[in-house]
Amino acid sequence: MTPMQEKIIDFLKRKQGYVSGEEIAERLKISRQGLWKHIQELKDSGYEISAVPHLGYKLDSSPDRLFAFEVTSDLNTKTIGRKILYFDALGSTMDEAMKQGFGGAASGTLIIAEQQAKGRGRLGRAWASPKYKGIYASLILRPKLPPAQASVLTLLAAVSIVEAVKEACGQELQIKWPNDILCSGEKLGGILTELVASMDEINFVVIGFGINVNNDAKSLVSGATSLYRQQKQNTSRVALLQEILRKVEKNYLALEAKGPEAIIQKWRGHNITLGKRVKVYCQHKAIEGQALDIDADGGLLVRKDSGISEKIMAGDVTHCR
Amino acid sequence: MTPMQEKIIDFLKRKQGYVSGEEIAERLKISRQGLWKHIQELKDSGYEISAVPHLGYKLDSSPDRLFAFEVTSDLNTKTIGRKILYFDALGSTMDEAMKQGFGGAASGTLIIAEQQAKGRGRLGRAWASPKYKGIYASLILRPKLPPAQASVLTLLAAVSIVEAVKEACGQELQIKWPNDILCSGEKLGGILTELVASMDEINFVVIGFGINVNNDAKSLVSGATSLYRQQKQNTSRVALLQEILRKVEKNYLALEAKGPEAIIQKWRGHNITLGKRVKVYCQHKAIEGQALDIDADGGLLVRKDSGISEKIMAGDVTHCR
Repeated sequence: MTPMQEKIIDFLKRKQGYVSGEEIAERLKISRQGLWKHIQELKDSGYEISAVPHLGYKLDSSPDRLFAFEVTSDLNTKTIGRKILYFDALGSTMDEAMKQGFGGAASGTLIIAEQQAKGRGRLGRAWASPKYKGIYASLILRPKLPPAQASVLTLLAAVSIVEAVKEACGQELQIKWPNDILCSGEKLGGILTELVASMDEINFVVIGFGINVNNDAKSLVSGATSLYRQQKQNTSRVALLQEILRKVEKNYLALEAKGPEAIIQKWRGHNITLGKRVKVYCQHKAIEGQALDIDADGGLLVRKDSGISEKIMAGDVTHCR
Repeated sequence: MTPMQEKIIDFLKRKQGYVSGEEIAERLKISRQGLWKHIQELKDSGYEISAVPHLGYKLDSSPDRLFAFEVTSDLNTKTIGRKILYFDALGSTMDEAMKQGFGGAASGTLIIAEQQAKGRGRLGRAWASPKYKGIYASLILRPKLPPAQASVLTLLAAVSIVEAVKEACGQELQIKWPNDILCSGEKLGGILTELVASMDEINFVVIGFGINVNNDAKSLVSGATSLYRQQKQNTSRVALLQEILRKVEKNYLALEAKGPEAIIQKWRGHNITLGKRVKVYCQHKAIEGQALDIDADGGLLVRKDSGISEKIMAGDVTHCR
């Protein structure tokens, strides 16, 4: 998408009917020949555009591509997603976001890829990222938080995704500590938070999220599900991503203004870990007991059978029967 | 320094007297002409080499430059400093180390600069780095520690520097929490730890240290001192850096094998903060009280006048009267 092509789509969207090539060419100060070439390229990108002699051009439909232009249009956020770098394919949005973060990218910058060759999950696990099926994105944030509180951003992202999915397509989701997004007990999404920090302050944080949206059964790994599988219909990835960005901004502003308690309260409302008997694998050991609560740093409090409680900052949770 | 020049210096060092050009040229498989050119370049680098007809070449002295070759020779560590990247000048060794860390540099890789244009201290402060006067270096480590324990590495670096300075030139130093290295109440060195991590594990840590070694009064900022000012004589920067690397390795192996307690115990023995009345400025507030202890994460425990104790992970400490 060139800036001129974005202008053409924007113009056609606002007109909502046939517009003569002459009018478009004049308004956008390009030749009729140039306009025709751009229209062909837009069709190649998946835009369906009718061309009728004497009537002109009409936009019939936009493809469900996460083009920066489509995502930012009508987004109405202040910082989150205001700048978007879109890639048809990337090794990993995390790696690109790290690079951009070091390069000084502004807080709120979002990296999107339609496909990842090496999508990463927690602990070096792979995240399957088939083309045009899911949302694979990494958000750069520069929060004024102590490094020890960075975990709260993982909770914030999980809460925001659950809220956005509910709003965008009515689907209820659950959160398994710390950051698994589940739907009917199967994995719908994951969040990976990486930070670059000194002991005193966070330089920047990258919050990556992968969400299975329109995947059919054969593009899902075992134990995973998608919104399509749950709802038997496609969801607009653009609309869903926009809603996620709006929810992240709202929750992030609340976190900056009022601290983590409101986020943690929301997280408690969506989680399925607290109150359960759990086994947590962390740092070469397993801790088993009752998941009591999470604290202001996002740590999980587990009461072991000995009666002693332990706070766990990271690990893999299995819910026991 | 080319690899051939390193070989020539190594050869001359081992001979400890005049060696004929013919012998050197034959052993190292270069022409007499080539040897002569290398000798000239070595002289330009600060090596003092006598050349006497019929006798040959003799190494009179090596410059106090932190050439990778000089530092690694006789270092006898397993990982720390085994790979060194030497720069005559850099913006900041931290930035270069971050770059190398992302590029996959092995744990123990050290970045050295003889001069930094933008030497960084904590909280974005500058670290004055005049050429050939101090040690400005950043060490890349890939510890198997939870991210929350990364602070212990700052304590480890502080302890190692204090131990090394004592060993290399007999000077007693003190540590002010968290990472100021003091000599008679003035600042001799500082440590800056930065980490790249997910919530689950550390990707890598960069420990930067700046030490004022042979600075005279006019190359020191107010409140700072140097080993030269304390001892009225120059210290070999190569020998001191080697000793630091050896101490870091020893303490790091102990940390990996036995956990942080031994490091923290040593830190207690060198610190001047515990037991004092302190005012700690952190995250837009100041906490005043009695500095009680540090915990296993390196946090400072302060008992406020209300009787309530607070744990502080980062901040600026002022010792009160």
